[in-house]
Amino acid sequence: MSTPLDPITTLVEYLHFPSISTQPEHAKDLVACAEWLAGLFKKMGLTATIHQTAGHPILVAKTIPDPQKKTVLIYGHYDVQPPEPLEEWTSSPFEPRIDEKEGKIYARGSSDNKAPTLAHILGVAKTLQEKGTLPVNVIFLIEGEEEIGSPHLDSFLQEHRQELSCDVVVISDTGMAPGNLPAITYALRGVAAMEFIVRGPACDLHSGLFGGAVANPLTVAARLIASLHDEHGHILIPGFYDTVASPEPWEQEATKALEKASGGDASIKKLAGVEELFGEAGFSTLERIGSRPTAEVNGFGGGYQGAGTKTVLPKEAFVKLSFRLVANQDPKTVLEQTASYLRTQLPPGVSLKIIPGHYGEACFIDPESPNGKAAQEALAETFGTPPLLLRDGASIPIVTHFKKIFDVDVLLLGLANPDCGMHSPNENILLENFLNGIRLSEQLLKRLSQT
Amino acid sequence: MSTPLDPITTLVEYLHFPSISTQPEHAKDLVACAEWLAGLFKKMGLTATIHQTAGHPILVAKTIPDPQKKTVLIYGHYDVQPPEPLEEWTSSPFEPRIDEKEGKIYARGSSDNKAPTLAHILGVAKTLQEKGTLPVNVIFLIEGEEEIGSPHLDSFLQEHRQELSCDVVVISDTGMAPGNLPAITYALRGVAAMEFIVRGPACDLHSGLFGGAVANPLTVAARLIASLHDEHGHILIPGFYDTVASPEPWEQEATKALEKASGGDASIKKLAGVEELFGEAGFSTLERIGSRPTAEVNGFGGGYQGAGTKTVLPKEAFVKLSFRLVANQDPKTVLEQTASYLRTQLPPGVSLKIIPGHYGEACFIDPESPNGKAAQEALAETFGTPPLLLRDGASIPIVTHFKKIFDVDVLLLGLANPDCGMHSPNENILLENFLNGIRLSEQLLKRLSQT
Repeated sequence: MSTPLDPITTLVEYLHFPSISTQPEHAKDLVACAEWLAGLFKKMGLTATIHQTAGHPILVAKTIPDPQKKTVLIYGHYDVQPPEPLEEWTSSPFEPRIDEKEGKIYARGSSDNKAPTLAHILGVAKTLQEKGTLPVNVIFLIEGEEEIGSPHLDSFLQEHRQELSCDVVVISDTGMAPGNLPAITYALRGVAAMEFIVRGPACDLHSGLFGGAVANPLTVAARLIASLHDEHGHILIPGFYDTVASPEPWEQEATKALEKASGGDASIKKLAGVEELFGEAGFSTLERIGSRPTAEVNGFGGGYQGAGTKTVLPKEAFVKLSFRLVANQDPKTVLEQTASYLRTQLPPGVSLKIIPGHYGEACFIDPESPNGKAAQEALAETFGTPPLLLRDGASIPIVTHFKKIFDVDVLLLGLANPDCGMHSPNENILLENFLNGIRLSEQLLKRLSQT
Repeated sequence: MSTPLDPITTLVEYLHFPSISTQPEHAKDLVACAEWLAGLFKKMGLTATIHQTAGHPILVAKTIPDPQKKTVLIYGHYDVQPPEPLEEWTSSPFEPRIDEKEGKIYARGSSDNKAPTLAHILGVAKTLQEKGTLPVNVIFLIEGEEEIGSPHLDSFLQEHRQELSCDVVVISDTGMAPGNLPAITYALRGVAAMEFIVRGPACDLHSGLFGGAVANPLTVAARLIASLHDEHGHILIPGFYDTVASPEPWEQEATKALEKASGGDASIKKLAGVEELFGEAGFSTLERIGSRPTAEVNGFGGGYQGAGTKTVLPKEAFVKLSFRLVANQDPKTVLEQTASYLRTQLPPGVSLKIIPGHYGEACFIDPESPNGKAAQEALAETFGTPPLLLRDGASIPIVTHFKKIFDVDVLLLGLANPDCGMHSPNENILLENFLNGIRLSEQLLKRLSQT
């Protein structure tokens, strides 16, 4: 490669692809986008292979492996969310627009995940351009189905585990901390989902002729939901908290630092669109989201759903329930504890059908491990301030896949600004974050080579 | 009229009309049915007028009024429920089939309400045939929209209140007591309906990113429902029971007699299709249905309704609720008490929208009044056994219309056998009940003339 790649020009090119994975009419755009990436890697001197899957292709690019060096796998995705509703965009989602005053570039996929992925690619390109070599072996794994749940990634990792063997995984698909401060996400909550169906009479009954004589499945379902929490938001399922660890002193410090930096409850209220927050007594909001487990009703239904009134005593009701879990809680045990607890509370004349759903363990990546420390140092060096340590309340299954299959640390170094509008109209990224990302990548590979 | 009308032949003719009020394609069948009835009345020597409404016609037939005599208004309806599902019928719903062994006639509308209405008509015809005169003035009011909620009846009664002025109203549109025993229904429960909507975040939130930090509207809705009852089925709304009267000793006796005659809880379990009954502690099942108020959830919904799981923290939930009320409970007061009670229990960050629905007062017709006693005597004379006294848990708005507009007793003398399959496939009536109804009508008019 004779001349260095211009970061902004390259980003604008990348953002032009309408690589919308959920819309079948864009399948060819995903292929074109993967091919464009492959061309870029080849220009940089890496090998690049486009692997077909039953869905959209997975791209693997590698430097020539040196057995003396550690191997870093950098994961990203080139697919994007649909841009709809189009009328809410101030510029066309696939015609990238730079706002000089804001210092942002607007386009679908800008923050999720094209600019962060490209920052890592250009960081590698820059080092190769300047030094001719990298301090580590690098494998880029960039898929095209992240926005539709990565249906083919797990099996791909299994099949290519030898080829993709690595010492550490780096993912920049989360966000910067509130205030656009640098951060490492060191914990993700687990998840356990279930549905239960309360069944009563053989058919819907007349609420006049039978009301008072039989247990109403909707009332029973509501009472079961109500039995999950006490009035202070504590979960009442016996054994539920048994394995929940209290945050370590350093975690409490990290949370306090984050609260101070982030604008606290006021900014969470604004993000959630509520006038007041509510949660488990005895914990701060960030603790409730990050380090405490929850039980949330995701949906319920039963009986008459139309306009006005129908005085029916319905035969059944359903409740969809999911738990967010924290380290050491076993999802299967939680589902079993919940099933047992619900069954103890049934009045006569109703039955309970429990349908277990998907689940995944909570995940913890020690930010004080050698790799974690290397990442912290790279962030501090790049941004001029030590990173905040984040617990993310969500569950990211790909992280668990990487941890399970390769048994390595997964470093989550978000580059998206908090107001990036990921998944929403007018998605954007601060150009400063993108350019810092290139520097971060250089720093990170250097420091990871030394652990 | 030269020759007496043959009851069975006349009933079969009447049952042939597919007078399905809810299906527009049958509008002409309703007109034909009303005209057939008008012809029958004219043959009997009554005047008969078919009144057009915005829906199906209302038929009024009258004897020539004698100001010396009391006037009895007999209400019925010539419209029927749709017969679907047709494949569950063992014979065509509008081709009446007599089963000699069972002593039943099978047809849509047989028990609801053609045979009971026709019994009264033929009772009058028989008396006129035999004696040339009736002991009372009779007005038949037979509508064609009962099965769709009588939308034009109330205004019709208001407009024709002079012409329809009467001393007592007789309706045979309820059932015989369990065991096919004769009965008077002397009380109906009132009703009060409402919907409430619990609103939280401005939009559906990610249950990982926000779960634990904000009140979940579905959990709140469930807790509000759960707060309506204690574990023993008592309603917890302050003031709710203040005006609920305890049953009089004679009512307790009547309920005991009914329990004994009806097969008790076993038969109610069978009808409801449940293995066990459940209701307010301290009361029998018949008391819970007849003389105790209830709060029933008729429908609820919110959040994800599709298959599988969506880990959403939904922005809102709705609950449809209705109360059955007993004498002296004011429906509007109950709705107000409920609204106040629910509002006191909201956690921070959610709001409650309450939409009051329809309501109607409970109704009580003293079976020991002169007209009530006359009806009891007529029943005892006809069936050879004193009638049981029933409280019906349902609410029949037409009864309240008649009571309010004419300020008279409304005698509810059901003729349908308990296994008549009203509104279901294979609707039927015992021919014995139909023929006894003719005798009952003769007896009743004679005794009402003497009160």
